[in-house]
Amino acid sequence: MFNVRKPTLLLNENICRDNIRFMSHKAGWHNLEFRPHFKTHQSAKIGKWFREFETEKITVSSVSMAEYFADDGWNDITIAFPVNLRETDEINKLAERITLNLLVDSVETVQYLAANLNSKVKLFVKIDTGNRRAGLDAKDFKGITNVITAMEKSANLNFTGFLSHAGHTYNASGREQIGVIHKQEADALAGLKKLFHSAAEKVIVSIGDTPSCTTEDYFKGVDEIRPGNFVFYDVMQHELGVCDSAGIAVCLACPVVSVRRDKQEVVVYGGAVHLSKESLTDGLDRKYFGLVVNINAAGWSLPLKDCYVKKLSQEHGVIKMSESEVKNIKPGDLIGILPVHSCLTANLMKEYLTRNNETITMMR
Amino acid sequence: MFNVRKPTLLLNENICRDNIRFMSHKAGWHNLEFRPHFKTHQSAKIGKWFREFETEKITVSSVSMAEYFADDGWNDITIAFPVNLRETDEINKLAERITLNLLVDSVETVQYLAANLNSKVKLFVKIDTGNRRAGLDAKDFKGITNVITAMEKSANLNFTGFLSHAGHTYNASGREQIGVIHKQEADALAGLKKLFHSAAEKVIVSIGDTPSCTTEDYFKGVDEIRPGNFVFYDVMQHELGVCDSAGIAVCLACPVVSVRRDKQEVVVYGGAVHLSKESLTDGLDRKYFGLVVNINAAGWSLPLKDCYVKKLSQEHGVIKMSESEVKNIKPGDLIGILPVHSCLTANLMKEYLTRNNETITMMR
Repeated sequence: MFNVRKPTLLLNENICRDNIRFMSHKAGWHNLEFRPHFKTHQSAKIGKWFREFETEKITVSSVSMAEYFADDGWNDITIAFPVNLRETDEINKLAERITLNLLVDSVETVQYLAANLNSKVKLFVKIDTGNRRAGLDAKDFKGITNVITAMEKSANLNFTGFLSHAGHTYNASGREQIGVIHKQEADALAGLKKLFHSAAEKVIVSIGDTPSCTTEDYFKGVDEIRPGNFVFYDVMQHELGVCDSAGIAVCLACPVVSVRRDKQEVVVYGGAVHLSKESLTDGLDRKYFGLVVNINAAGWSLPLKDCYVKKLSQEHGVIKMSESEVKNIKPGDLIGILPVHSCLTANLMKEYLTRNNETITMMR
Repeated sequence: MFNVRKPTLLLNENICRDNIRFMSHKAGWHNLEFRPHFKTHQSAKIGKWFREFETEKITVSSVSMAEYFADDGWNDITIAFPVNLRETDEINKLAERITLNLLVDSVETVQYLAANLNSKVKLFVKIDTGNRRAGLDAKDFKGITNVITAMEKSANLNFTGFLSHAGHTYNASGREQIGVIHKQEADALAGLKKLFHSAAEKVIVSIGDTPSCTTEDYFKGVDEIRPGNFVFYDVMQHELGVCDSAGIAVCLACPVVSVRRDKQEVVVYGGAVHLSKESLTDGLDRKYFGLVVNINAAGWSLPLKDCYVKKLSQEHGVIKMSESEVKNIKPGDLIGILPVHSCLTANLMKEYLTRNNETITMMR
């Protein structure tokens, strides 16, 4: 049984390894390079579980995270984030010791790198296929040409392909819409690959979001996938129809500190500094911050009907309970919460507790 | 000038000290005990600035935080959170070395403490004056009587008064409504103090939220105030009319990594893992996650007109800029963001950078 004194992020290693196996095999079936995003778990130990499925290349979201995993022996890393020019010194040091893939979306950035990098890096042109965050529009052929051409000025900058993140699948109404977004993305990048096929020996197309990579089977023209969240999944993915709730590998165990049976509410030690304030809206238009489960010797139950995290302050969570569930709860009991967004919860908790009472650390 | 390579929480020490001076003096004018809440800054060093204003008693929100500040020499601490019975060992150790004030709101909890505590603690009865989180209803005289009576079974448990947190001022429409909520709270607790005056030598009434403590001057029957957020304030307090934007003492400096002049948008390295996903809604019903300022040698500017943080993902922030502001921005520049909720941002960032390029650490 878990030894929990304060809010603790439980990790079910079996579920997690199953998720890794599934995605690794799926990449294999489709003949795709599997370059998982490690920003979700941020843990050297969990990274090693991927090695068992022959993962050799990874994705991270910051220079700091690249340093952390390079220190752990990963030697082909993509920083899937537009290059931060203020970390050129750190990038130079990394590029000396590993194969480093960076993202660019402007001529200014490429020119700055040409003038300031001392080692070879591979550059992806970041393409915006509708997520509206960073990147050049997939139809902006002139802009893309300019960026690729600018790379030719420096022997250290090697154009390697096109990369996008269809994060807008997270706002999809369900699996059907995920499919539409995913096909648009794959086709747009495959189109660019054809158009710019002569710009590199092999132009790589890399895509990334967990919803598409989990549910879709159309990968025409795609070379590489970079999903991250699938390692744990979460309530958001469950609500999208991407995973079932038994596929969620992490659960925040929270001590009960106050019970209001009259209001069917329970206050737990477990708030915004543990779960994050990521929320969803249910069918009755109520905002919620997590689903509620029972903690047991095997791990945790499926979500309890009509129970949800209603409010979060810094350290408090207010949980709405069903009449039957609130009856027997008392201060000192444990309640489990499935997080809305496991990446943010893991980032806040900084470590995991397995069913063997082993603590798994993350980068700090 | 600030030396910033990645997202960095800047702290203007002058503004912060002014905020501390203001609240400390205000408590003095009203003859109130000043027991500031240290959950916002979570820093031994910033705690020491309070000592200059003769603060001797503090509030924290967890046993871990109490341990951290006790280690730094604070010897009268209130853990303003319903007691977590799973940390009884830690509480026993703390109670041996400092004056420890705890919160209870049920007979079960008091009975558990009576059976398990080895040292003397002071107990506040936690009262709910409308925030609907933890606590007994202020009109539940029977429930309150039962809790106080249960304390008499153990010589280690000393009833010390009534404590509430009118966190619902954060949802107030403005200063007028803050005043109404505050007066209700003060009157409810003062009423209980009269009713239960014989239950202790001196029954303490302790209230806490930053909006009330900043804007209100009605403290009839109140003995102690415990505001926390005022040390930095933030955009939420500004929107409530509690502080002006020049009173905000922290600002997240973020490197610009991508510029979309066509869309008047800028992407910065600075996302949900730096700012938190706390949001507000503006007059046009748009959700936003922070206001935008220019970083300069003196610190930062007032908020830039028509600029706001529009979207946050794990490490990215998407900033909507005005036409005039977006013109001259390029990758590698710095943009400042005033956080919506400084407590959550500070908790994520784990350290501050002052204008002297001094790094101030927090508890980990």
